[in-house]
Amino acid sequence: MFRFTTQYPRPSSRMRRGQLTTPHGIIETPAFIFCATKAAIKGVPAHWLAELNTQIILANTYHLYIQPQSQTVKALGGLHQFMGWHGPMLTDSGGFQIFSLGHGSVGDEIKGKRLAGGRKQTLLKITEEGAAFRSYRDGTQHLLTPEASIQTQIDLGADLIVVFDECTPFHVERAYTEAAMERSHRWELRSLQEFQRQKVEHQALYGIVQGGIYPDLRQRSVNFVNSQPFFGHAIGGSLGGSREQMDEIVRLTACQLDPTRPIHLLGIGGLRDIFTHLEWGIDTFDCVHPTRIARHGGALYKRHPKEHINLKNSQYRQDPNPIESDCACPTCTRYTRGYLHHLIKADELIAATLITLHNIYFMNQMMIEIRKGIEENAVEVVRSRWIV
Amino acid sequence: MFRFTTQYPRPSSRMRRGQLTTPHGIIETPAFIFCATKAAIKGVPAHWLAELNTQIILANTYHLYIQPQSQTVKALGGLHQFMGWHGPMLTDSGGFQIFSLGHGSVGDEIKGKRLAGGRKQTLLKITEEGAAFRSYRDGTQHLLTPEASIQTQIDLGADLIVVFDECTPFHVERAYTEAAMERSHRWELRSLQEFQRQKVEHQALYGIVQGGIYPDLRQRSVNFVNSQPFFGHAIGGSLGGSREQMDEIVRLTACQLDPTRPIHLLGIGGLRDIFTHLEWGIDTFDCVHPTRIARHGGALYKRHPKEHINLKNSQYRQDPNPIESDCACPTCTRYTRGYLHHLIKADELIAATLITLHNIYFMNQMMIEIRKGIEENAVEVVRSRWIV
Repeated sequence: MFRFTTQYPRPSSRMRRGQLTTPHGIIETPAFIFCATKAAIKGVPAHWLAELNTQIILANTYHLYIQPQSQTVKALGGLHQFMGWHGPMLTDSGGFQIFSLGHGSVGDEIKGKRLAGGRKQTLLKITEEGAAFRSYRDGTQHLLTPEASIQTQIDLGADLIVVFDECTPFHVERAYTEAAMERSHRWELRSLQEFQRQKVEHQALYGIVQGGIYPDLRQRSVNFVNSQPFFGHAIGGSLGGSREQMDEIVRLTACQLDPTRPIHLLGIGGLRDIFTHLEWGIDTFDCVHPTRIARHGGALYKRHPKEHINLKNSQYRQDPNPIESDCACPTCTRYTRGYLHHLIKADELIAATLITLHNIYFMNQMMIEIRKGIEENAVEVVRSRWIV
Repeated sequence: MFRFTTQYPRPSSRMRRGQLTTPHGIIETPAFIFCATKAAIKGVPAHWLAELNTQIILANTYHLYIQPQSQTVKALGGLHQFMGWHGPMLTDSGGFQIFSLGHGSVGDEIKGKRLAGGRKQTLLKITEEGAAFRSYRDGTQHLLTPEASIQTQIDLGADLIVVFDECTPFHVERAYTEAAMERSHRWELRSLQEFQRQKVEHQALYGIVQGGIYPDLRQRSVNFVNSQPFFGHAIGGSLGGSREQMDEIVRLTACQLDPTRPIHLLGIGGLRDIFTHLEWGIDTFDCVHPTRIARHGGALYKRHPKEHINLKNSQYRQDPNPIESDCACPTCTRYTRGYLHHLIKADELIAATLITLHNIYFMNQMMIEIRKGIEENAVEVVRSRWIV
């Protein structure tokens, strides 16, 4: 039911063009995965995603575990049926959000930022058994274990699911990172055993590489996942405090991973980052970035130093041009920057919708060109068309 | 460029089936006009309206006058071009909101409710010249006159535009209602003169009937608008403190209006109200109701005492049915009540979008059946299918 095939255009490079076959369709890789956190892309109903050339989306187990709870999603036919998206889907393990809310934002940590305090700490305790946390909705206490995470992901029913691990942030000590990694490996084994015990056939399991910014820990974690019968691998945890460090950690890690399995880079989706990391064979990327910036007026833009323009700026007030004149998305073919600026100023809901439509189409279009670029051994040409 | 033709199925009744020809297309009447207050239907981009069978939408001059200002809309090609809606449009005069914010909510007043205080009063002064008010955005002072309202509506460029009048609420004295009505008539004449002076050909002007709940004042106001060369007439002002009073006032008024001109009933859009008032020849209705209740979880529902169900209710948590099983809208054909309930609970933007899609389709479908019912002299059958 699951298959991953690859073609390499350059003998000396791990960069590759792939097909990842799932029960809900084939994902042409490299691919970008959009975040439908609570079983909804913010601002865009699922039935509008296909015309944007969307291949795959993800939902977050943690959010759905709390509301509406996985039993509800299961009772309503599983995630695909529930949200009306009939293409491939991925769920994470729930761990990222638990630890993110506990340690501070891991998302920011991955990018090397320390977070200002003030966020409510909901992580209560990490034990060998799992992670105890408090619901952000009603304060009830929960224990998420590897077995519970897998069970929840089976109830949700995404095509690609991932092991339960601890996502350690940048600012902790090496000793903590190492101990957490070892515990994560034990949790990954328990996740795998639970997955095998349930004899799931329509879902495939990804192992996660931890080890933070320490090359030797990353190597041990790579050896661990390579040695286990995971369908694919995801690179998680802290990638360092600078772009250079992140590039180096991802390169070191990706280049040692079993090349016959698909590789996912968790939570990274800047345009430059995608062009950089596909070089070492990253097959899929996910990030809230394209949909999140849209809700703040940010529209992705080719060859721009910031990779986007901000339509909130008053310079766009009477601008009769679309976001991008060469873009064929539903927004650029119909609406002007001036109108989008007005919608933002007027607090209209459809401001987010229209800019998100553009950003999703933009990302998919870039990935289409990247895949063509890989096939034709001309990724540099594509790169120079999309980023500076 | 403008034409209004009618067919009467019953010799003894003013109920009619019409075609209102505008530069942006023909409106089959009776028709419902959806509110795109700030040049946007809340939650639904304009390019999705046609597949919902939408014929005509309106925008509010007051809101656009303040932001982004009519010059901006004009600079970006006028309302149709600005918001990407290429069918017929109507704008109001701006008066309703000015007086509504000054007197308390006229919308509620029309329905006979007194408003709780606390809303900032922005109406500064009404003189023979016009209405002075303060912008709710930046506190700047403005004077809206009949001439300015018409000029603004010419800049906006809707097909159907209306005279500037004072919308008096229910709770004022008869003497005030009468004096305001007389002043409104003078303002309507000035509106007409400004409209004629500018030799506008691609827009048509509606006169408004005032007179509150007083039959003799309504008759005087009807005589006034009938005697002036307006293209159409709108029934405005307070319609009383009860449904019975409203029905009677609208009936008395509509039945005296020149039957060769289209008649619009301002701000009324309940299902029962539409079936009631089309009996006396109302051709178009508008109301924020279908789109507003959607943002609070309200989905229009056939033959329901409340005319809608509230998807916020926990009874829908695991409901696998669509809002209405016989509805062919984009929402009912794809999403369950359970999913919509989840989206509301999760504060997802697309909750409003999906329910609004249903409500717009619902209203258009009802109007389609009403028109067919009039043609076939079977409105009672249609009525019994839609309301109890």
